[in-house]
Amino acid sequence: MSHNTFGHLFRVTTWGESHGPAIGCTIDGCPPGIRFTLRELQDELDRRKPGSSRFVTQRREPDEVSVLSGVLADETDSDVMIATGTPIALQIQNVDQRSKDYGDIARQYRPGHADYAYDVKYGLRDFRGGGRSSARETAMRVAAGAIARKIVPGLRVRGAIVQIGDKAIDRANWDWAVVERSDNPFFTPDAASIPVFETYLDQIRMDHDSVGAIIEVVAENVPAGLGAPLYAKIDSDIAAGLMSINAVKGVEIGDGFASAALRGTQNADEMRIGTDGRPVFEANHAGGVLGGISTGAPIVARFAVKPTSSILTPRRSIDRDGQEIEVVTKGRHDPCVGIRAVPIGEAMVACAIADHFLRHRGQTGRI
Amino acid sequence: MSHNTFGHLFRVTTWGESHGPAIGCTIDGCPPGIRFTLRELQDELDRRKPGSSRFVTQRREPDEVSVLSGVLADETDSDVMIATGTPIALQIQNVDQRSKDYGDIARQYRPGHADYAYDVKYGLRDFRGGGRSSARETAMRVAAGAIARKIVPGLRVRGAIVQIGDKAIDRANWDWAVVERSDNPFFTPDAASIPVFETYLDQIRMDHDSVGAIIEVVAENVPAGLGAPLYAKIDSDIAAGLMSINAVKGVEIGDGFASAALRGTQNADEMRIGTDGRPVFEANHAGGVLGGISTGAPIVARFAVKPTSSILTPRRSIDRDGQEIEVVTKGRHDPCVGIRAVPIGEAMVACAIADHFLRHRGQTGRI
Amino acid sequence: MSHNTFGHLFRVTTWGESHGPAIGCTIDGCPPGIRFTLRELQDELDRRKPGSSRFVTQRREPDEVSVLSGVLADETDSDVMIATGTPIALQIQNVDQRSKDYGDIARQYRPGHADYAYDVKYGLRDFRGGGRSSARETAMRVAAGAIARKIVPGLRVRGAIVQIGDKAIDRANWDWAVVERSDNPFFTPDAASIPVFETYLDQIRMDHDSVGAIIEVVAENVPAGLGAPLYAKIDSDIAAGLMSINAVKGVEIGDGFASAALRGTQNADEMRIGTDGRPVFEANHAGGVLGGISTGAPIVARFAVKPTSSILTPRRSIDRDGQEIEVVTKGRHDPCVGIRAVPIGEAMVACAIADHFLRHRGQTGRI
Amino acid sequence: MSHNTFGHLFRVTTWGESHGPAIGCTIDGCPPGIRFTLRELQDELDRRKPGSSRFVTQRREPDEVSVLSGVLADETDSDVMIATGTPIALQIQNVDQRSKDYGDIARQYRPGHADYAYDVKYGLRDFRGGGRSSARETAMRVAAGAIARKIVPGLRVRGAIVQIGDKAIDRANWDWAVVERSDNPFFTPDAASIPVFETYLDQIRMDHDSVGAIIEVVAENVPAGLGAPLYAKIDSDIAAGLMSINAVKGVEIGDGFASAALRGTQNADEMRIGTDGRPVFEANHAGGVLGGISTGAPIVARFAVKPTSSILTPRRSIDRDGQEIEVVTKGRHDPCVGIRAVPIGEAMVACAIADHFLRHRGQTGRI
Repeated sequence: MSHNTFGHLFRVTTWGESHGPAIGCTIDGCPPGIRFTLRELQDELDRRKPGSSRFVTQRREPDEVSVLSGVLADETDSDVMIATGTPIALQIQNVDQRSKDYGDIARQYRPGHADYAYDVKYGLRDFRGGGRSSARETAMRVAAGAIARKIVPGLRVRGAIVQIGDKAIDRANWDWAVVERSDNPFFTPDAASIPVFETYLDQIRMDHDSVGAIIEVVAENVPAGLGAPLYAKIDSDIAAGLMSINAVKGVEIGDGFASAALRGTQNADEMRIGTDGRPVFEANHAGGVLGGISTGAPIVARFAVKPTSSILTPRRSIDRDGQEIEVVTKGRHDPCVGIRAVPIGEAMVACAIADHFLRHRGQTGRI
Repeated sequence: MSHNTFGHLFRVTTWGESHGPAIGCTIDGCPPGIRFTLRELQDELDRRKPGSSRFVTQRREPDEVSVLSGVLADETDSDVMIATGTPIALQIQNVDQRSKDYGDIARQYRPGHADYAYDVKYGLRDFRGGGRSSARETAMRVAAGAIARKIVPGLRVRGAIVQIGDKAIDRANWDWAVVERSDNPFFTPDAASIPVFETYLDQIRMDHDSVGAIIEVVAENVPAGLGAPLYAKIDSDIAAGLMSINAVKGVEIGDGFASAALRGTQNADEMRIGTDGRPVFEANHAGGVLGGISTGAPIVARFAVKPTSSILTPRRSIDRDGQEIEVVTKGRHDPCVGIRAVPIGEAMVACAIADHFLRHRGQTGRI
Repeated sequence: MSHNTFGHLFRVTTWGESHGPAIGCTIDGCPPGIRFTLRELQDELDRRKPGSSRFVTQRREPDEVSVLSGVLADETDSDVMIATGTPIALQIQNVDQRSKDYGDIARQYRPGHADYAYDVKYGLRDFRGGGRSSARETAMRVAAGAIARKIVPGLRVRGAIVQIGDKAIDRANWDWAVVERSDNPFFTPDAASIPVFETYLDQIRMDHDSVGAIIEVVAENVPAGLGAPLYAKIDSDIAAGLMSINAVKGVEIGDGFASAALRGTQNADEMRIGTDGRPVFEANHAGGVLGGISTGAPIVARFAVKPTSSILTPRRSIDRDGQEIEVVTKGRHDPCVGIRAVPIGEAMVACAIADHFLRHRGQTGRI
Repeated sequence: MSHNTFGHLFRVTTWGESHGPAIGCTIDGCPPGIRFTLRELQDELDRRKPGSSRFVTQRREPDEVSVLSGVLADETDSDVMIATGTPIALQIQNVDQRSKDYGDIARQYRPGHADYAYDVKYGLRDFRGGGRSSARETAMRVAAGAIARKIVPGLRVRGAIVQIGDKAIDRANWDWAVVERSDNPFFTPDAASIPVFETYLDQIRMDHDSVGAIIEVVAENVPAGLGAPLYAKIDSDIAAGLMSINAVKGVEIGDGFASAALRGTQNADEMRIGTDGRPVFEANHAGGVLGGISTGAPIVARFAVKPTSSILTPRRSIDRDGQEIEVVTKGRHDPCVGIRAVPIGEAMVACAIADHFLRHRGQTGRI
C-alpha cells in the first residue's frame, strides 16, 4: 500500500525532493550474493544525467551515488560489492538546487503540471523544482535498475527513442550500437535520425516550446514462466511501472494498439522447434508475454511521454487565490523530457522482471 | 503480493476456473454503510454476459450472482443490501461448461494463448476452457465494479468501443445514449458504425478469423486529489488494471500515444475560473490526471484488445512433447473479444477510483 | 493492507459471518503440484468442530468443506487433488444458525465482547452470533492450515492444552499420543489431567461461568533459515497469527515471559555437532527462533485464551441508546473457548511457516 | 511483503547495519500537515541512547538524527517541520563503530545469537556488530515513533520496566513521574526498585552474565474503533511490532497470560455511563482492545526481553567449519538489553496506533 515503493519481492522505495539536501532509495529484497560495482550504478546514472547535451536540462548534477548499507566488500576485489540480503540504501546529494528560479510559482498553478491537483490533495505543496514530482526522483530508479539487471542471469534490457514529436525513426535502420554512440544525444537507434532530431529540437527550443516522444524497451533472455494470469501479469506490472514515470501517458506491449487492427491469423505467433531442439516463436506480435506470463521471446514495451509542461511561452491559468493569471515557467527544462526517459524506462522494465523472477521462484520453486 | 487481488484498500480477490463448479470473489474493504441491490450487480453482469448476440461467444451462462457475506438487509427495503465493512463474498455458478469441447487441446500449445507459458511456469495446467486465464473470471470484476461505483459519491463510469479491427468510429457522432441501445451489440457510441461493424464481423466469422478492438472509458465526477505522485499514480493503477484484462496489449490516458506528437503549448490544458467560481480546464489532453493525481476533469482511458486467439483457421504450433503440430481451436469463441471488454474496462476503472478514494481519505483525512 | 488476509506468499483470505449462508476462504499462493485430499482437510476440521463434547458449544455444524477451484484431480487417484497454482476456494455451508437466540442482544453491548467497539467503528453491526467476529471464521483457518502443512516437506505441527483456568498440566506426563485419544475432550497431553479438567469444567458450567486456557504449539522439521531479521521475523508473524485468533491475549516463543528471569548463561542454547555430523542445540530456550530466523530446532509457541465472554451470569453494561443495563448472554457457548483453539493455533503456526518457506525461497533461491 | 517495513498506511522502512556508515529510515504515509521539531525526535532518541549509564552498553553514539526529505519549514517558526505527505527520510551517522572488537567472531556462531541461522539463510553474513540484527536499528524506530505520536490527536504512549531478571517492581508504588527521573537509569515507575536494580545488575555484571526484563507500555487517549476483527486486529499488529524488537520472546495485552486463570465473570470489563454521559469501563482486563478493536480504554501491552546473549562467560558452540568451540563475546554490551527496550516498545505501539488510525479513516471515513 505504499505510495513510494515499486515491486513486491524486489522492492524499491524512493524518497527525496528536487530541492532538498539529497534523494535516495532503499532496495529491500535484493537476494544475498548478488554482486555489483559502484561503477555499474554510476554508468547507468550517467546515461540519465542532466546537462549532457543542449537537448536536456542544463541543471548541473554530478549524480554521484553512494551505497550506505546492505553490502559487503568482496575479499578479492574490493570494488565488488556483495549484497547481504539486507536493505541496500542508495543516496545522491543534490548539488545544483537554485531554488530562486522557482520563487514566482509558489502560488501559481502551471498548466500541464500537478500543482493544482497537489494543492487539492495535500493542502500544501513543496513547489521548489516540482518537489516530489520532479524527475530527479527517477535517478534512484535508474540506480535500482542497475542492481535489478544483476538478479536475472543473462538478462539484457535496452531502450531506444522511436519518435520525437512527429518525427519517427526508420525502423529499417535500427542498430543498437548507434544508441550509445557519443555523438547521439537522443538514444535513437537510427543514425539517420540524429541530424533530423537536432534540427527539429533546435527549432522547438527557439519556439519556446517542447515536444513529446515514444520510447521502446526490449528485454532479452527473460526466462519463460515469469508473471501470472490476472492481477500479477508481468505486462500489467510493466505497464504500471512505465506509467509511473513522470509525463508518461501511454504504454503498450508487443504490437500494442496496432494489434486492434490485426486479424487473429496474423496476430498469433506460431511456434516451431528450433535447431537446438527448443521451442521458438516465428513472430513476436505478443511482445514476449502471453496471458501475463513471459514466453521466453524478448519482452517489447513502448511508452509515450507527453511534451515538457514547463515552457517559456505564456499559458493561461489560475493561482491559489482563484485569480486568473498567465504563467511562464522559467528554469532549466528539457525541450523533450522523453529523451532522458530511455534509461528510466529500461530501469522500470528491469525492476519488474527481477521482481517477477523472485516471485516466480517463491511461488513455484522453479528457476 | 497477491496474484489474484486488485486494489489496496478496496481489494477484490477473485477465484475460479472456466470449467469448475463456480467462480467468485471476495471484496475486502467496502466501507460500512454502502448500499446496493442485487439487481444493480446483475444489470452490470448482463452487459458482459455471453450469448447476447451472434458477435460474442454462444456459451450460455445466466451469470446469476449471489451475495454470501458482508451485508445486512435494509430494514425498510429488503432489496437493499447494506455493507457491514466485512468481506463481501460474491459467487456465480458455472452452468454450461461442456468440457468435451476442449479435450483435444490438453497437450497442444495454442498460438496466441498462454498454454506454453503456463506449462513452463506451473508444470501442470487446467486446460479446460483456458482454466484460470479464461475470460469468465472477468464476470467477478464486473460485479465488484458495480459495488465500487457506489463508493465515490456521484461517480459515473461509462465505456464505449471506438474501433473494431481496422474500422474506427466517427467521434463526431458520439452519443452515449446509443451505447446501451438494444439494437447495438457493439457498445459503439456512433449509430452509423453499427451496420458497418455487423457486415465486417460477419465476414470475419466466415473467414474463421477474429479481430481486435479499442475501448474508451470515461469516468466523470471524480474528485480532484485522488492518486499520488510516483508509484501510486491513479493512472498507473488504471493502466495496471486495464492491462490485467485478458488480451489487452496497450493502455493510454487522455491523448496517450498521440501526445508524443503534440507541442507543449498544445498539450497544456489551460485553466480558468468557471461561472460557478470553481476552477475549470479549457481542454482535457491530460485525461483528468496530472502528476498521477486526479484534477477533477473526466478521467479518460483507452485500451487495445488483441484479436481473439481461438480461431478455426489452422495455425502452426508445438505440443507438450515437443512435436510440431497444427492447431485449430474449436469451441464457442467471440470473433472480437474486445466487445465484451467494455463493461470490464469500466469495472477496472471504477475499482481503481474507489480504491484511491479510500486511500486518499486514509492518507489525508480529506473528502 | 487486507483486514481479512493472513500471509504474504501463502495468502489466506477468509469471509463469512456466523449466521450467513456460508463461510469460506481463498488460498492464493499454494504452489502448483501440492497434493492433498478432502479427507485431510475434513479431519482437521473435525478436530475443531462444535458439539464434540459437553465442554464445547452444542451448536451442530457438520462443517463439511468443499473445494471450488484451484485443483485438478490426480489421474491415478481421484481422491487426490493437485494444486494448480491458482486460487483455491474453500467453502462451508452454515447449517445450524438459530438466529432467534440472538434477538435480544441486537442493541446490547455484551461485556468482554467487541459489540461496543464494533458500533463505534462501523456504525452498524451484524449482531447475529457475533457476525464476523464469531469463532466460526476459524474453521477456514483450520482448513487452510491443512494445506499449509503440505507445503513444507516433513513439517509436523502439533498442539496441546497446557492449562485450563488455574489448572496446569504436569509436563512430566507429556505424551503426544494422549492428545488425540477419543476419551480426551481437552487436547491435553497429560492423561492425569483429564478427570481434573472434567470435574473443574462441570463446576464452571454449573456456576454459569467460564475460564481461559493456555495452548502450546510445537512445529517440528522446520528448516533452518526461515524468517528474517526485524519486521519479517518468523516469530513476529507467528505472534500476529496467534493473536489474531478470537480471545487470545498473549503469545510467547520458547521460554517466553519466563526468559526475563533467566540469566544469559542459562538462556543461551549451546551448540554441538551431533552424531550425524550436523549442528545440534543442547537446549531450546529460544523455541527454535533466533534473530527472527528458524534454527532448525522445534518452534515452540504458547498462547493464552481469555475466558469465554458469553456467560449466563448477569453483567452490568450499557446499550446503544446509552442506557445502563444488565446483560445475560444466552445461546450455546463453550465454557472454555481455549479448548477448540488448539487446532486453530496449529493452523496459524502452519500457515506462518509455509508462508516463510515460500518467502525464503523467493528471496534467497534456497531450499 | 517487505522484510524491513512496519505498518501499512504509516509505513516505516529501515536500513543500515551496526558498523556501516549510517542507519536510516523512510516514513511513507505521514499525513500532510503533521508538525514536529527535530528536538522532539532527538529527545526520544536520547532516551534510548547507549552510554547513558553503567547499566547499558558503553558504545558512544550521539545518535543525532537528520531529516532529509518530506518536510517544509513552518513560515513562522523555522524549528517546526511540516510534513508534506511525501516520504520523510531520517538518517543517523554511525560514529563509534570499532569493528576490531568483532574480528574473532567472524566464523563463530555465538549461542543465543542469530549467527548460525543467518549463515544458513543468507550464505553470507555481516558479522560486524551483529550487522542488520544489531539493536542499533531500533534507533530509527524510536525516531519514527516520535512522528507517529503526532498523528493521533492527544495520544500519549508511555512505557516502564516492570521486572528485571527475577526482581519485579511493586505496582502499588507506580508513579509515572519516577520513570523519567534523572537518577533512574531503569525506566522503573517504582522508586523503591532503583537501588534494588542497581545492586542486582552490578552483581550480574561482575558475574559476567546478563538478565532479561519485562516492559509495560500504556497508550492513553486512543480513540475507540481502531483496528478490525481477525487479521488486522490492533492487538495483533502491536504483538507483531513488539515481537519484532530484538530479543523479545513474549507479548501480552491487558491481563495477558494471567487471563487464562480468570473466570468470565471476573474478566468481563463491565460498562457504565460516566458522569460526562460517555461510556466508561469499570475495569480494563482487556487492555483497551476487544475483538481486535480499541475500546477507548488505555491500551496496555507487556513484552518480555530475554537476557543479553553477548556475555563474557564462555559458552559451548560451533563454527562455520563445523568445529566445536567455546565462545566468549567481548565488546560493549548491555547487561540487560531490556532497559533500553522501553522507548522502543513505546515507539512500536505508537506506530501501530498511528497506522490503524489512518487505516480506520480510509476504511470508514470516520475520525
